[in-house]
Amino acid sequence: MGEMVQNKQILLKEYISTGYPKESDMVTQVSKMSLNVPHGSHGIVVKNLYLSIDPFIRYRMSKSDRGYIDSYTPGQPIEVYGVAKVLDSGTPKFKKDDLVWGFTGMEEYSFITDADSLFKIEHTDVPLSYYTGLLGMPGMTAYAGFYEVAAPKKGEFVFVSSAFGAIGQLVGQFAKLLGCYVVGSAGSKEKVDLLKNKFGFDEAFNYKEEEDLTAALKRYFPDGIDVCFENVGGKMLDAVLVNMRPHGRIAACGMISQYNLEKPEGIHNLLDVITKRLRFEGFVVFDYYHLYPKFLELVLPYIKEGKIKYMEDTAEGLESAPAAVLGLFSGRNVGKQVVVVARE
Amino acid sequence: MGEMVQNKQILLKEYISTGYPKESDMVTQVSKMSLNVPHGSHGIVVKNLYLSIDPFIRYRMSKSDRGYIDSYTPGQPIEVYGVAKVLDSGTPKFKKDDLVWGFTGMEEYSFITDADSLFKIEHTDVPLSYYTGLLGMPGMTAYAGFYEVAAPKKGEFVFVSSAFGAIGQLVGQFAKLLGCYVVGSAGSKEKVDLLKNKFGFDEAFNYKEEEDLTAALKRYFPDGIDVCFENVGGKMLDAVLVNMRPHGRIAACGMISQYNLEKPEGIHNLLDVITKRLRFEGFVVFDYYHLYPKFLELVLPYIKEGKIKYMEDTAEGLESAPAAVLGLFSGRNVGKQVVVVARE
Repeated sequence: MGEMVQNKQILLKEYISTGYPKESDMVTQVSKMSLNVPHGSHGIVVKNLYLSIDPFIRYRMSKSDRGYIDSYTPGQPIEVYGVAKVLDSGTPKFKKDDLVWGFTGMEEYSFITDADSLFKIEHTDVPLSYYTGLLGMPGMTAYAGFYEVAAPKKGEFVFVSSAFGAIGQLVGQFAKLLGCYVVGSAGSKEKVDLLKNKFGFDEAFNYKEEEDLTAALKRYFPDGIDVCFENVGGKMLDAVLVNMRPHGRIAACGMISQYNLEKPEGIHNLLDVITKRLRFEGFVVFDYYHLYPKFLELVLPYIKEGKIKYMEDTAEGLESAPAAVLGLFSGRNVGKQVVVVARE
Repeated sequence: MGEMVQNKQILLKEYISTGYPKESDMVTQVSKMSLNVPHGSHGIVVKNLYLSIDPFIRYRMSKSDRGYIDSYTPGQPIEVYGVAKVLDSGTPKFKKDDLVWGFTGMEEYSFITDADSLFKIEHTDVPLSYYTGLLGMPGMTAYAGFYEVAAPKKGEFVFVSSAFGAIGQLVGQFAKLLGCYVVGSAGSKEKVDLLKNKFGFDEAFNYKEEEDLTAALKRYFPDGIDVCFENVGGKMLDAVLVNMRPHGRIAACGMISQYNLEKPEGIHNLLDVITKRLRFEGFVVFDYYHLYPKFLELVLPYIKEGKIKYMEDTAEGLESAPAAVLGLFSGRNVGKQVVVVARE
């Protein structure tokens, strides 16, 4: 069995139905684990370095058979994106000491059977933690949704809901780099200021201070919206529909306002989809991972030239992960929420 | 002024807000009209032969500034599609005795200023009234929505809501000709039987007899729906969303269930658009009229070979038009609703 270690893990206690997750929905345990890949397995054993806290975690904490991604299994470590170091490998794709990013567990060490789903990290002249965000799944999501799904053109009017999230920040910056007019919504004055002053959005507003979201969007888009990168759902989506321009596109990435509800809110303005010939298209980043090299080619130079800004909100230690999950839904984090398990 | 005639007209009395239209929302008057195009005008004067009663009429009877098409003006003849004969022309595009189809008025004679929007009827070896339906706007709508928007593939599972309407009938037949599995919903046993036995749908059901539309669709599509041609909106759309397969497409043509409501029903299942990567796309036939010659090339042979079936429900006389409008919304007509104003 080779070397055995103590492995601290955070498990889902049981399925949650409605409402925000609570710390008590997650439980910490310490188990024993071998650092060697079992004989005959094509998996890898990794040491987790950085874990990514993303909205889909809440989605997977509920039991559902309708999703694009499996629900978690209670009693098992919570699956998240992360950056990890290979300790032992049963596949020629990776060797000891390689750095990888992809799905791993909310734990110190993971045995990953489906190693093919992981990406090898080739560029280490940027912070490794970026591969949980800007250079990882959220970055690829922004890229796929904006360039591939929304098919934007220079000069178009772009709205990003939940713009301060890891994905939204990047969509807005892509849109500015393309020469679009970009407005984002966020949930605090601090975030609104950062969107405008740090991330270069033309405008931003605090949706919590708007009584009438339709009127708010009308104020920022008197001529309407060509492209909406939709992260929120619910009332915001209804307001977006009314403000869309003919032939507009809504790239539907997430509906964070809806995941905690028992029954999603009703959307009333879908007739606009017809009258304005809108395209409302959902997408999932998994379908676009083959574009990852193309994405890196675009983004790495921008990062090095300082043309793309990025902010992380770092929580130290695996034991801080449950609070970080809660913080994501209360909007407490300012920047991409990362949990540092180890710095190598 | 040239020859003057009595012109019987049906006008919108005043804007209606909610509910079905009533006969009293329309008023008949007789006015005088010249049969000559005014000097200097590029319009045409036509004698209306067949008028088409379509769901958009209800939509335009309400005041709205959000539509793809203008609201009617109270006190003016109701604009509808029709087949007409040119009596006098101010444009080189048409000459006396040409037959045309396109927007005209609910009246015996019309002076059409925007003659460029009309199509000249070149093929008269099919019944002229077909140009209000199968060979007119509804036919082009079915063609554009199915082939251009939904991008169907042989063997896919296709659902057509409001399948017995002029558009739905044709979509189902297109789908069968392409080698798809097709199910339609309609509002009576008679229509369901006709869909299956005359129009060749694989299955059809009466939505009024289904307590649970989601379960009904599940019954007919145990493996889910690839393409939905959406005419209905509301609860049917919510049921469709749940039953869509990954990468499915919803071509949104109309929402007939919603036009009479003060506030459209809420749609709750849009999260399926994301999790299944659906494309929900609205379209308006106006954007596709340049494909009309290609459409005729496809459809005329099918009609002559008897491979496409078509049914009309004919009301005699202009005065029958208001009742025909009401009948469309109560589902009384069996087949494309045409009003015969004159048979030449």
